[in-house]
Amino acid sequence: MSDEEEGTGRHRDFVQSLERGLAIIRVFDADHPRLTVSEIAQSAGLTRAAVRRFLFTLTELGYVQPHRNGYELTPQVLELGYSYLSALTFPEVALPHLEKLVADTGEASEGAILDRDDVVYVVRVPGPALMTISVSVGARNPAYSTALGRVLLAHLPPAKLDAVLEKAELKPMLPNTITDKTALRAELARVREQGFALVNQELEIGLVAVAVPIRDRHGQTRAAINLSTHIGRQTPEAMRDLVPRVQQAAADIELGLRHSISWAD
Amino acid sequence: MSDEEEGTGRHRDFVQSLERGLAIIRVFDADHPRLTVSEIAQSAGLTRAAVRRFLFTLTELGYVQPHRNGYELTPQVLELGYSYLSALTFPEVALPHLEKLVADTGEASEGAILDRDDVVYVVRVPGPALMTISVSVGARNPAYSTALGRVLLAHLPPAKLDAVLEKAELKPMLPNTITDKTALRAELARVREQGFALVNQELEIGLVAVAVPIRDRHGQTRAAINLSTHIGRQTPEAMRDLVPRVQQAAADIELGLRHSISWAD
Repeated sequence: MSDEEEGTGRHRDFVQSLERGLAIIRVFDADHPRLTVSEIAQSAGLTRAAVRRFLFTLTELGYVQPHRNGYELTPQVLELGYSYLSALTFPEVALPHLEKLVADTGEASEGAILDRDDVVYVVRVPGPALMTISVSVGARNPAYSTALGRVLLAHLPPAKLDAVLEKAELKPMLPNTITDKTALRAELARVREQGFALVNQELEIGLVAVAVPIRDRHGQTRAAINLSTHIGRQTPEAMRDLVPRVQQAAADIELGLRHSISWAD
Repeated sequence: MSDEEEGTGRHRDFVQSLERGLAIIRVFDADHPRLTVSEIAQSAGLTRAAVRRFLFTLTELGYVQPHRNGYELTPQVLELGYSYLSALTFPEVALPHLEKLVADTGEASEGAILDRDDVVYVVRVPGPALMTISVSVGARNPAYSTALGRVLLAHLPPAKLDAVLEKAELKPMLPNTITDKTALRAELARVREQGFALVNQELEIGLVAVAVPIRDRHGQTRAAINLSTHIGRQTPEAMRDLVPRVQQAAADIELGLRHSISWAD
């Protein structure tokens, strides 16, 4: 019997060693780029003996390498995430248009997609200002508290939106954050009607953003792009005035995506 | 006995189900964003029953989702690769400087690190021209045939360079490609001496690039940045004249990295 045939407590088809190996990769992050066996064991909730076997395997496969008295990830882990990104098309098509938008407006721009109740940033162009938003590609935020997320939620089919809202926990991150589901539904209806979302300091103090949808040829919203600023640089009203420029960038991106095969269905 | 305790033919500590699960994630790419169980089984060299178990597990963990009669990756796979990128610092520090370099020169720029005998692109800014190089972050190329790679190889400690060259197979990708190891060593010595590499159509027809090292505070080369163009737009001589600008960008990046903790050791 090969190792993946065993389950351990969960569904019999669940391959626990895969779960554990992936969990070990994710224990490493910006604050913990190098870890010892003990640290990994503690973070991943595994025995040191188990961690050693997984590290041996990940080292053999080239995803991890020893570093002094610990371990670090190798660039090869990028191939796991980028198999996704490179299949996505949207970041590649959107990038030059977001760059133009940033050059024209002096503010930062990002593109994101919805993953359950989170927005996931898949393309970004920082603004020229020192105080620019710095989310990484791959980072996520709760959809309900971001302009990008509101646009993506607003265009979900009603049943899907209900499912997301049922599970979502609306935390009051800032005084402005909408935490009432009825109020959020009303805001989403407004976003749908006016064609954009404006979020004024609901996620982070000083952060103001506008976002618009990116639709496929069937009119279905598949992604969103934004323009974000610091309140000290632009008022919410000034950001609202920039919406037509963001919409123009979105139209250009939609046109580019119309020729993309992977965006077709 | 839990599943990861079994080996199957390889070293007894090797967790084969982790290898297989990771292999399944990597079967997906830009040309194959959606795959059926049979297609995955064929590409990964596994039985359909095994593939179904792995897909069940990856779906439970949120890395994969069903799509019509097949499967696709979810944005969550980005968290595997980005745990690496976010720890790297260099891309984040380099990006604004590469953007400035691209704005000033009208050519594309990338930053890369060395992983064994490959360069791995970790940051990129496409040029404004339609015909711009389009490598993705995470993509790799053989180090010996790229300007970035030559810079990184040139600054390896001699023993490490020997080890890389011993294993490297220098394929004649184009008439210009250096395929002789003695000639490559001579070229690397020249790169070291002159402080930059210039590669004229050794990797792809029309592609000309110059690259310079990024050093840490101890003078050790940790990364490289380039400027690349199409031969129809700039001659190799014109690119050589742009080297001081690339070196200025490198100096700015090195200064930025000097304040970075994760770049410190």
